Amino acid sequence: MHKEAIYHRPKNNFAYAYDCDTLHIFLQTKKSDIQSIDLIHGDPYDWIDGQWQTTIKPMEKSGSTHFHDFWFTQVKPTFRRMRYAFICSDDEESYIYSEGGFFTHPPKDIAHYFCFPYLNKTDVFNPPDWVKKTIWYQIFPERFANDNEKLNPKGSLPWNSTCPSPTNFFGGDFQGIINHLDYLEALGINGIYLTPIFKAHSNHKYDTIDYMEIDPQFGDKKLFRELVKKCHQRGIKIMLDAVFNHSGFYFPPFQDVLEKQEQSSYTDWFHIKDFPIRTEPVPNYDTFAFVSTMPKLNTENAAVRNYLLQVARYWIKEFDIDGWRLDVANEIDHSFWRDFRRTVKEAKPDAYILGEIWHDSMPWLHGDQFDAVMNYPFTNSVIDFFGKNEIKASDFTASISTLLHMYPRNINEVAFNLLDSHDTPRVLTLANGNVEKVKLMYLFQLSFAGTPCIYYGDEIGMQGGEDPGCRSCMEWNTNRQNLELFQFIQTLITLRKTDPLFGNYGNFRFIYDDNEANLICYEKRNINRCLVFILHAGKMKTKLSIHSIMDETKSISEWFLSKQGMIRKALDSKTDPLIIQPLSYRIFEM
Amino acid sequence: MHKEAIYHRPKNNFAYAYDCDTLHIFLQTKKSDIQSIDLIHGDPYDWIDGQWQTTIKPMEKSGSTHFHDFWFTQVKPTFRRMRYAFICSDDEESYIYSEGGFFTHPPKDIAHYFCFPYLNKTDVFNPPDWVKKTIWYQIFPERFANDNEKLNPKGSLPWNSTCPSPTNFFGGDFQGIINHLDYLEALGINGIYLTPIFKAHSNHKYDTIDYMEIDPQFGDKKLFRELVKKCHQRGIKIMLDAVFNHSGFYFPPFQDVLEKQEQSSYTDWFHIKDFPIRTEPVPNYDTFAFVSTMPKLNTENAAVRNYLLQVARYWIKEFDIDGWRLDVANEIDHSFWRDFRRTVKEAKPDAYILGEIWHDSMPWLHGDQFDAVMNYPFTNSVIDFFGKNEIKASDFTASISTLLHMYPRNINEVAFNLLDSHDTPRVLTLANGNVEKVKLMYLFQLSFAGTPCIYYGDEIGMQGGEDPGCRSCMEWNTNRQNLELFQFIQTLITLRKTDPLFGNYGNFRFIYDDNEANLICYEKRNINRCLVFILHAGKMKTKLSIHSIMDETKSISEWFLSKQGMIRKALDSKTDPLIIQPLSYRIFEM
Repeated sequence: MHKEAIYHRPKNNFAYAYDCDTLHIFLQTKKSDIQSIDLIHGDPYDWIDGQWQTTIKPMEKSGSTHFHDFWFTQVKPTFRRMRYAFICSDDEESYIYSEGGFFTHPPKDIAHYFCFPYLNKTDVFNPPDWVKKTIWYQIFPERFANDNEKLNPKGSLPWNSTCPSPTNFFGGDFQGIINHLDYLEALGINGIYLTPIFKAHSNHKYDTIDYMEIDPQFGDKKLFRELVKKCHQRGIKIMLDAVFNHSGFYFPPFQDVLEKQEQSSYTDWFHIKDFPIRTEPVPNYDTFAFVSTMPKLNTENAAVRNYLLQVARYWIKEFDIDGWRLDVANEIDHSFWRDFRRTVKEAKPDAYILGEIWHDSMPWLHGDQFDAVMNYPFTNSVIDFFGKNEIKASDFTASISTLLHMYPRNINEVAFNLLDSHDTPRVLTLANGNVEKVKLMYLFQLSFAGTPCIYYGDEIGMQGGEDPGCRSCMEWNTNRQNLELFQFIQTLITLRKTDPLFGNYGNFRFIYDDNEANLICYEKRNINRCLVFILHAGKMKTKLSIHSIMDETKSISEWFLSKQGMIRKALDSKTDPLIIQPLSYRIFEM
Repeated sequence: MHKEAIYHRPKNNFAYAYDCDTLHIFLQTKKSDIQSIDLIHGDPYDWIDGQWQTTIKPMEKSGSTHFHDFWFTQVKPTFRRMRYAFICSDDEESYIYSEGGFFTHPPKDIAHYFCFPYLNKTDVFNPPDWVKKTIWYQIFPERFANDNEKLNPKGSLPWNSTCPSPTNFFGGDFQGIINHLDYLEALGINGIYLTPIFKAHSNHKYDTIDYMEIDPQFGDKKLFRELVKKCHQRGIKIMLDAVFNHSGFYFPPFQDVLEKQEQSSYTDWFHIKDFPIRTEPVPNYDTFAFVSTMPKLNTENAAVRNYLLQVARYWIKEFDIDGWRLDVANEIDHSFWRDFRRTVKEAKPDAYILGEIWHDSMPWLHGDQFDAVMNYPFTNSVIDFFGKNEIKASDFTASISTLLHMYPRNINEVAFNLLDSHDTPRVLTLANGNVEKVKLMYLFQLSFAGTPCIYYGDEIGMQGGEDPGCRSCMEWNTNRQNLELFQFIQTLITLRKTDPLFGNYGNFRFIYDDNEANLICYEKRNINRCLVFILHAGKMKTKLSIHSIMDETKSISEWFLSKQGMIRKALDSKTDPLIIQPLSYRIFEM
C-alpha cells in the first residue's frame, strides 16, 4: 500500500458541509492501489462503558486522475459533530489512516482521528440558489449593438466596418442591449454579465475614471435602470464588473497625486514607492501587471476600502443588480473581500460574487469571500481536448476529475464555466473554424455542473483571435449568422433548463475514455434516472460496445436533438456495438 | 519517482507570506525518493520577447516524517507576485511539478504554474510580537492560593486538606495570586493564563452565570483591576478564558427559557429542538458534549453574538487584559470568530487570541480568526516519548516534524505549547513520578519554537491524575516543594528569555535519533551560532560520536546548567565519543 500518496485534510475540498445536515468526505489514494475504503466515524462524545461508539460506512470511487483515485461518502451526523478515520484495505493489508497517521487497529484515543468539530449552519457554503439554474451571456457593451448613435464616442467607426483595435470605438450602448433582449430570451439565457460600464477612458472600460457614473457612450443611469428592469421582467439576472484592483490613469485621485505629488491627500490611495512619481521605464508605484496607466489601488487604506464598498452597495441598492464579477480578484487582499462580501450580502442576500481567478482558488472559496470563480482551468481542458486535440481523452478526463475534486461539490455547482471571453480567442477560432468541435464543447459545457456562460456572438459562429480580435462587433446580419449553431445551443439551453439531470442536479462521472479514438463517455445520474453522453472528438468512425458504458438490462432510449427540440427513441438492442461518427455525440437515457 | 506522493497547495502551510516581503514555500515528497528539488519562479507579468523570465533556486530538506520529506525555500518577490513550480530530480529523471501536473520541460503557458498572486501586507499572519517572548503560567484560580478567607464559598475546605473532587471548594482567590507575584516573577514567567474567573456555579467556572461579573469567591472588579495592573508592572501579561461555546445552567437567559418555555424571549439564544425542554435522558437542545447543564449558545443569533462581543471588548477596554483563550473554540462557527477577532483587535491591536483546539487547526489560522491554538498534538508527542516511553525516538521526531510542517512558521512561533493542563493528568504523574523525565520535557518545551506554558505547581513537582486529580491546591510549603526542579525550570526560562537562539529565534531541526537508546538530537541555528541538544530518554548509558551530530572543525563548547545559571566550557576534543547518561541531556554550542 502506498501510504505516502494517501491524503486528507478537513475543512476544504476533502471534508466540508454540503448543506446544514450533510458532511461530504473525500480521500485521495494512489491510483489503482487500494481495493476498498471504509469510513469509520462517530460523535466524539458518544461513549458507552469506556468504548467510543462508531459506525463504518463504505466509500465509493468518485473519480480518478493520472496519479490518484478519489473516494467519497456522505454522513449526516446526528449531533452535527464527527470524528473519523479511513480503513484502507487491499488484498494483503489493512490500515486505519487518520490525523495521527497509520494504525493497524482503530486507535482508542479519539485525539488520533480527523475532526469535523461542529456543523454550524452559518458556515455552510451557501451561494444563491438561482445561480445553479442560470445560463450566462457575456456582453462587451462597446461591441454588442449600437442603437443610439448620438452617444457615439468621437471618431466612432461604422458598425463592423473594420477589425477591432486596442483603441477604436464602434459605439455599442445600452439601448442596443435593450433592443436585443428578445434575441437573448429566444436563445434562452437568463443571466447577463456585462464587462465594465462605468466611466472610463478605453473601449474596454477596465480603466475606470468614475465608479459612480455610467460611461456616457452607453447611456445614463435612467437607461441603465430600465435595462435592469427589463431584464428582470424577463427573468434575466444582471451582473456587473467591479474593477477594484486598479483604477484608470484618469481616476481623479490618481490625477491629484500626479499633480500635487507628496502634497496630494490621495497618496495613500495607491502603492507609491517614492516621489516624484514616474511612469517610465518601470512605474515607481504598484500597477496591474506593469501597465503604468492602471495604478493598483491600496485596498488596505480605510478610505479606499470605504469608497469601493460604497460602490459595491450603491449599484445593488439603487439599480438592483444581481451580482458582481471581480476583476483581478486574486491580487486584492482577502481582508477586503471579506468586507466586500459582508457589504454585498447585506445589500442583497442572494447576490452572486464571482472572482476572476485563473488558478486554484480554494483560499477564496471558504464561504467568507466569493461564491465562485471564473473556471479557466475548465476552459483550458475543454479547448485543449475538443478544440485543439492537444491532449488525449484520458488527459481530459483526468484534468476534469482533478477540477471536480479540487473544490467542494456545492462550489462546483456554481463555478462560472466559460469556453472563452474577452480575454481569450473565441472558441470557434480555437477550434480552427470547425463548428462540429464547437458543438461538442457546448454540449459538454451545458451538460456539466456549474453555471455556464456564452460569450456574445459565439452562438452564431463569430470568430476572433487574442484581444482585441475577440472583441469585434456583434454580427446582426442573419445571413452572416450560423443559425444552425444558434439553434443547437438554444436546444441545449432548453434541455439544461427543463431537465434537472441534464442541468446542475445530476451527479457527474466519467465512465469511459478511448485515447485512440479521442472519445469520452460520462453519465449524469440521480436516484431514478441516468443520462449517458458519448462525445467523440476524433477523426475516425469508432465502434463502442454498449455494455462497456451502460447497463443493458435496463430499458435504454436515445435522444435526438433537432430544431424542434429533443426526440426520445428506444434503443434497438441489435445496434450493439454502437457506431460513433467522427466529431459527433450520442445521448442515451436509462 | 513517486509522483503520487508529491503535494503542494498555495496559501496554507505549503506557501504563505512569512512577513511583508517574504514568501515561504514547502513541498512534500515521498521520503528518501528524490535527490534534489529546485524552485523555478518568476513574476507572472515579467516577459521579454515572448519569454517568461524565471529564476531557479535550490530548496533544502526541512524535515522528514515516516512517509515524507519536506523541502523548503524562501523568496522575496520584487513586485510581490509569484508564479512557480518545482523541479524534482533523482538519478534517472527530472520533472516539473506545478498546478497543472507533471511536465518534462517547464511549461510555456504560465497558467500551469502555482500562483501566489500578490503579497498583501494586511493578509500576513501577524500575531502579537510579545507572544514569541512569553513564558506562560496557567492558574486555576480556585486552587492557587486562598488569601482572603472571607470570600470562601460556603463549605470551603481547609487548603490542601483533601483531594480535589468535582464539586469541592478550597477558596482560592485573586488576593492569593497578587500575594504570590514575587514567586511567579522569581520563576521567570511573564504571562498568566487564568481559567475562567466570571460568575459561575462550579469550582472550575466553565459554567458561566454572568460574563460581565467576577465570581465573588475570587474578589471584585476593583481587585481584578489591581491584579492586572500589578502584573503589568512586572511585565507579566494576563489572558482570560472565554467560555462562549456554551453557557452555564444558571445563565439567566437559559433559566428564562426553562421557566417560560416557548414564551421566553431567549429561545433563539440556544439550539432548542422542541418544547418543552427536557434534560433527560438526552437533552433536546444542543449542549457541550451531552452535558445538559452546559447548553450550547446560538452564536448565529445576532443578539448572542453582540452580547459575547461586548464581553470580549469589555474586559479588554475596562481592565486591559492582554488575551483571550477560547474554550471549545472549534465547535463555534468561523463567522463568529471572524467578528470576534475584529472586535478584539480593534479594542487592543496586540491582544493574543488563543483557541482551544486539540486537532489540526489550519482552518482557524489563516489570519482571520486565531493567533494560535493550544498545541495538544505537541503535548501528546512529548508525553508519549519522554514521559511514557510509548513511542520510539524516530516516532517522536516524525510527529514533531509533522507538526512543524502542518502550519506556517509564523504560526508555530506562537503555538501555545503545554505539557499538561487542567484537562489532563499532570506531567510528573504522566512520567510515573520520575523528575528526570520531567526535566527533559521542560528542556525540550523551553528550547522549542512556540510560546510555552507551565501549569501551576508543576514547577515544584506536584502530581495529580485526570480531572479532578490535576486540580489540587498549590503546595506552598517549601518543605514539600521540589526546589531543585523549580531552579532547573527557572534556569531554562532565563536562558529562553536571554538567548534568542535558545528561545523562539533559532531555526529548529532534528539532526539525529536513535531508537535503541531512545535518544534524540536537534539543533537551533541562526547565521552566526548553533546550539545542539542531546536528549536521552532511555535507560542505558549510550555512546554518541561527535561528528554524527556536530561539525568538529568548529570550536565547540558545552553548556552546564546549575543553580547559578549556565556555565560554558570548551569541549575537549578527546571526549569523542560522548558518553550520554540515561535520562540526561547535553547542550553544545558551535
